Amino acid sequence: MTCLLMKAAERAQLAMMLEVCAYPKPGNVDRCHDYPDTRLEHFLASTLFARQALEEAESGEGRIGEIIRHAVRDTNCHEGGNTHFGAFILLIPLIFGEGIPGALAAIEKTDVSDAVAFYKAFAMTSVKMNAADELDVHDPHTLTVIRDRDMTLLDIMRHSAANDMVAREWVTGFPLTRRGADLLKHFGPGRTAIVNTYLTLLASEPDTFIIKKHGPAVAQETMLKAREVLDGRYSLEDFDADCIERDINPGSTADIIISSLFIALGEGWQWDY
Amino acid sequence: MTCLLMKAAERAQLAMMLEVCAYPKPGNVDRCHDYPDTRLEHFLASTLFARQALEEAESGEGRIGEIIRHAVRDTNCHEGGNTHFGAFILLIPLIFGEGIPGALAAIEKTDVSDAVAFYKAFAMTSVKMNAADELDVHDPHTLTVIRDRDMTLLDIMRHSAANDMVAREWVTGFPLTRRGADLLKHFGPGRTAIVNTYLTLLASEPDTFIIKKHGPAVAQETMLKAREVLDGRYSLEDFDADCIERDINPGSTADIIISSLFIALGEGWQWDY
Repeated sequence: MTCLLMKAAERAQLAMMLEVCAYPKPGNVDRCHDYPDTRLEHFLASTLFARQALEEAESGEGRIGEIIRHAVRDTNCHEGGNTHFGAFILLIPLIFGEGIPGALAAIEKTDVSDAVAFYKAFAMTSVKMNAADELDVHDPHTLTVIRDRDMTLLDIMRHSAANDMVAREWVTGFPLTRRGADLLKHFGPGRTAIVNTYLTLLASEPDTFIIKKHGPAVAQETMLKAREVLDGRYSLEDFDADCIERDINPGSTADIIISSLFIALGEGWQWDY
Repeated sequence: MTCLLMKAAERAQLAMMLEVCAYPKPGNVDRCHDYPDTRLEHFLASTLFARQALEEAESGEGRIGEIIRHAVRDTNCHEGGNTHFGAFILLIPLIFGEGIPGALAAIEKTDVSDAVAFYKAFAMTSVKMNAADELDVHDPHTLTVIRDRDMTLLDIMRHSAANDMVAREWVTGFPLTRRGADLLKHFGPGRTAIVNTYLTLLASEPDTFIIKKHGPAVAQETMLKAREVLDGRYSLEDFDADCIERDINPGSTADIIISSLFIALGEGWQWDY
């Protein structure tokens, strides 16, 4: 009894659900840990409310920037703040293009209208920009700059790639998404594979959400600690407690895990074990 | 920022999600407790996969028995077994009829085709019948009996009402669903209201799922213990541990909580607090 005939939109929702339920995940909202303002239920409510936009992506019609805007709009109706902005940036082209090659082709076709819709979506979230960012989402002048320079959404992602591992996926061909999917299959079926994949990515890639919030030294330290957990020199529970204590949440790694789950589920990886 | 414009199908999914995440819930799968074969993720996957059947109910077209069959079929594609059969029996007429009065009108219109579709759905689940039940779902003769007697789905529920509190809701006008919704509003916004409503219903109504599994004495004892928790004479955590230890899970009360949440959400009760 499996769900191999799942539609892509359902598979994306399943990926979002499995990611947030996996535990323990150092620093992030999981089955056993909420943030004061963002709780498990908020992530799961967003997973439900995203359905229409994910189905829009599955139709292969419409424009990617606008579909991202719809996903953010439809999941913004609770008090939990942004839950899946990064995940939508990854999932929507992957659904639209039916996998990584198609996503890259679709991304190449984005234009200034996608960039403008994306910035409107961004402005609805509370996601932080880098302090030095020239295209600040809270600056009304930004949309004028985007239009004047005729920037595509891919241009925006190129602009952000140095400091944002989610944007980098668009520019570099989704290598971490691919690696995460391969890791899930390597670790085998079931939910412990999700935690192991999470730790493995965390040990090898500095999480850019941590860098934006705490600087590169803390991101580097988090990588080393994830490595220690994988090597059995530090307990996962202590790592989780330390991250929570210090408000270190590897949010971009969580976004990558969602897109990795989406790809792996489509390739037959069994969540239900 | 609220989600008052939610569609009925989404509201039903939200009710299913909030019920399973609420904790601690004595004896049932919750955020902090799985059964060996049925886990939080199974309940949440069923919540996602039920969408199409719930939307079919929302369309107000088609037949209730068949829609229940579709919901069971679409959520049967994982290894977690039955998760929401009782909840679908309550939710689907409530969605179809846009509330309790419309549900009762729709229930009156069920015919033998609904009864047959319902029994086909039932046969897909592992839900237990009462030992003495004349219309045993595992007896191929049952469908013949239903057809020969021209029984409607409401007749089937009348037949089951004495021993099944979910069936009794159909026959008696959804009084526990109504009471649960009123209790949620009484206890105020947020997830602790779900646990308090659950305990209050459990303290006043013998759970028929417990009766089927363990007999009426255990159901009665469970009611008294729920009363003790409400009166502060027994801890909720100890009650939960005792139920888990003895495999006592008030599954029918959980089904009623879902339909109560569905009604309360439609009347403006705030989950997101």
